[in-house]
Amino acid sequence: MRATTIHGPRDIRVEEVPDPVLEQPTDAIVKVAAGCICGSDLWPYRGENPIEAGSTIGHECIGEVVEVGSEVSQFSAGDFVVVPFCHCDNTCPHCLAGMQSACVNVDGTASGQAEYTRVAQADGSLVRTDGTPDPASYPSLLALTDVMATGWHAAVSAGVRPGAKVVVVGDGAVGLCGVLAASVMGAETIVAMSRHEPRQRIATDFGATHLVEERGAEGAARVKDVTDGVGADAVLECVGTDDAMGTAFAVARPGSTVGFVGVPHGVELPLRRMFVKNIGLAGGMAPVRRYLPELLDLVLSGRIDPGRVFDASLPLDEVAEGYRAMDERRAIKVQINP
Amino acid sequence: MRATTIHGPRDIRVEEVPDPVLEQPTDAIVKVAAGCICGSDLWPYRGENPIEAGSTIGHECIGEVVEVGSEVSQFSAGDFVVVPFCHCDNTCPHCLAGMQSACVNVDGTASGQAEYTRVAQADGSLVRTDGTPDPASYPSLLALTDVMATGWHAAVSAGVRPGAKVVVVGDGAVGLCGVLAASVMGAETIVAMSRHEPRQRIATDFGATHLVEERGAEGAARVKDVTDGVGADAVLECVGTDDAMGTAFAVARPGSTVGFVGVPHGVELPLRRMFVKNIGLAGGMAPVRRYLPELLDLVLSGRIDPGRVFDASLPLDEVAEGYRAMDERRAIKVQINP
Repeated sequence: MRATTIHGPRDIRVEEVPDPVLEQPTDAIVKVAAGCICGSDLWPYRGENPIEAGSTIGHECIGEVVEVGSEVSQFSAGDFVVVPFCHCDNTCPHCLAGMQSACVNVDGTASGQAEYTRVAQADGSLVRTDGTPDPASYPSLLALTDVMATGWHAAVSAGVRPGAKVVVVGDGAVGLCGVLAASVMGAETIVAMSRHEPRQRIATDFGATHLVEERGAEGAARVKDVTDGVGADAVLECVGTDDAMGTAFAVARPGSTVGFVGVPHGVELPLRRMFVKNIGLAGGMAPVRRYLPELLDLVLSGRIDPGRVFDASLPLDEVAEGYRAMDERRAIKVQINP
Repeated sequence: MRATTIHGPRDIRVEEVPDPVLEQPTDAIVKVAAGCICGSDLWPYRGENPIEAGSTIGHECIGEVVEVGSEVSQFSAGDFVVVPFCHCDNTCPHCLAGMQSACVNVDGTASGQAEYTRVAQADGSLVRTDGTPDPASYPSLLALTDVMATGWHAAVSAGVRPGAKVVVVGDGAVGLCGVLAASVMGAETIVAMSRHEPRQRIATDFGATHLVEERGAEGAARVKDVTDGVGADAVLECVGTDDAMGTAFAVARPGSTVGFVGVPHGVELPLRRMFVKNIGLAGGMAPVRRYLPELLDLVLSGRIDPGRVFDASLPLDEVAEGYRAMDERRAIKVQINP
């Protein structure tokens, strides 16, 4: 099959690789209907994560089950499914506690920028849609495999409550989905820290009540104004850089929590401030499967349209251009069609 | 008056200093009935915090109000009061949100190892006892000014719930009070990490169900055994060193929270593990005033006896010996009597 591979910084190729096969009786093989590029794929793309040259890349997709292992009982060929970026058996103690991203029985993720993918622990991992969806709904379904669930996890981790004053740091697809999550959860004030007009527009449509373009101390001062000098009740850190984390803690009020979902890179936590001001840190790799049923309902009922974060769609053969567009911030999120 | 001063590492003296006076109309002056030495006083004592030579030290006491400012309406001379180590007006937005340790209208703390102390924002800070208590109850009342409230805060921050499996790192007075807090909150399993027999005894009396003497990886492995391989639902970090924090994160299950109340010194957080395993960090300087009414009820009703952490009592003139005893771990906590 054709799959996206990475050979070095900014060296993305589409190559023939062996078709995935059932390795465990709990596996399923899914024919990818659509995949996408994740902000976190840009870390290895930019050379900031080590890679094995020639390895496949990508971890978000939706598609049709074509084969299942002998122990898969809940799915069969023909089912259209949403594939969360991290698989899980949904029965281990961590899964039962809602932390499916730490499932003890799964290691590794799907390869979503390809024609097919193997899904481990299919019964626990997958969620079925009703029938085969219209391709017009692919973007929103794709968003559920990672970015929408991740933005939601940031909001859950930060403890967003109805009436809360929330700040979202980061205007990538996850940050925008974080705005949407806070809005659905009833936040009263939602500050999106963004200086990019197209992203500001989506943030506003998703429920942001304020836009703050300034960064650093100036941005924190603006947030202080918006929050009557008190600071935010909850902060969603959706980037993973030291600057973003610093901003998150600078705008958080005493006793609040920073919900972080950006993969941390070079972050130095302000531990003294955290201690003196009682500002907590929670979050991490999103337990997508935990949120999927609820989020799928929200999408299918038309209550949320997270697919709006997709502003480009390319055939698999042009996936390298998708990486370039996201790297250069010409695109927020790119759908890839095998 | 006589007060405890610090002149350098391990140089504690009792000296004549000016009596405290009302500086603000919201102040009160309290005649100290009993004060004590805090584990956090050992940081400057050991030269690990900068000091101003000759400055007073100590921040925990109980006593009798002798004078109040013109704007103090809730207290008057003769009231016996518990003085939380951090003062607060109890009306600012942070206080109203339960984060009294971040009160915007107070800076600084009491001087409890002395004959008198000034209390800022007396109406907000102080809590009255019913009449003048028996000196036999001084230790438990003193514990409420800091260590019991701090151990309680660790448990609240870590999210201890009925039935939870809890690990307490640190067997100082705060850690022991953390054990007691977890027990009152209904934890089912409480692991005290302690290798000191007298402390183990108190931990067990306070509700610890398991004692783990090992540290580091070995200690973490023992906790894993106790928690059926899953890890702790909540961890109380009551020391503040890098080792203690490392142990706390090593024993925490995915999705759990480390509640930290030890003043952090040289701590390097395992951010990657926090992200991948979704282990949060919450806590900090305890908002003592928030918990005081509830904790005072628990003491007065005889439900808890946190005063058991006091295993020495000295006259003010011998306060230096109290520091030595705590520094050398000959004493857990020392009461100082002016």
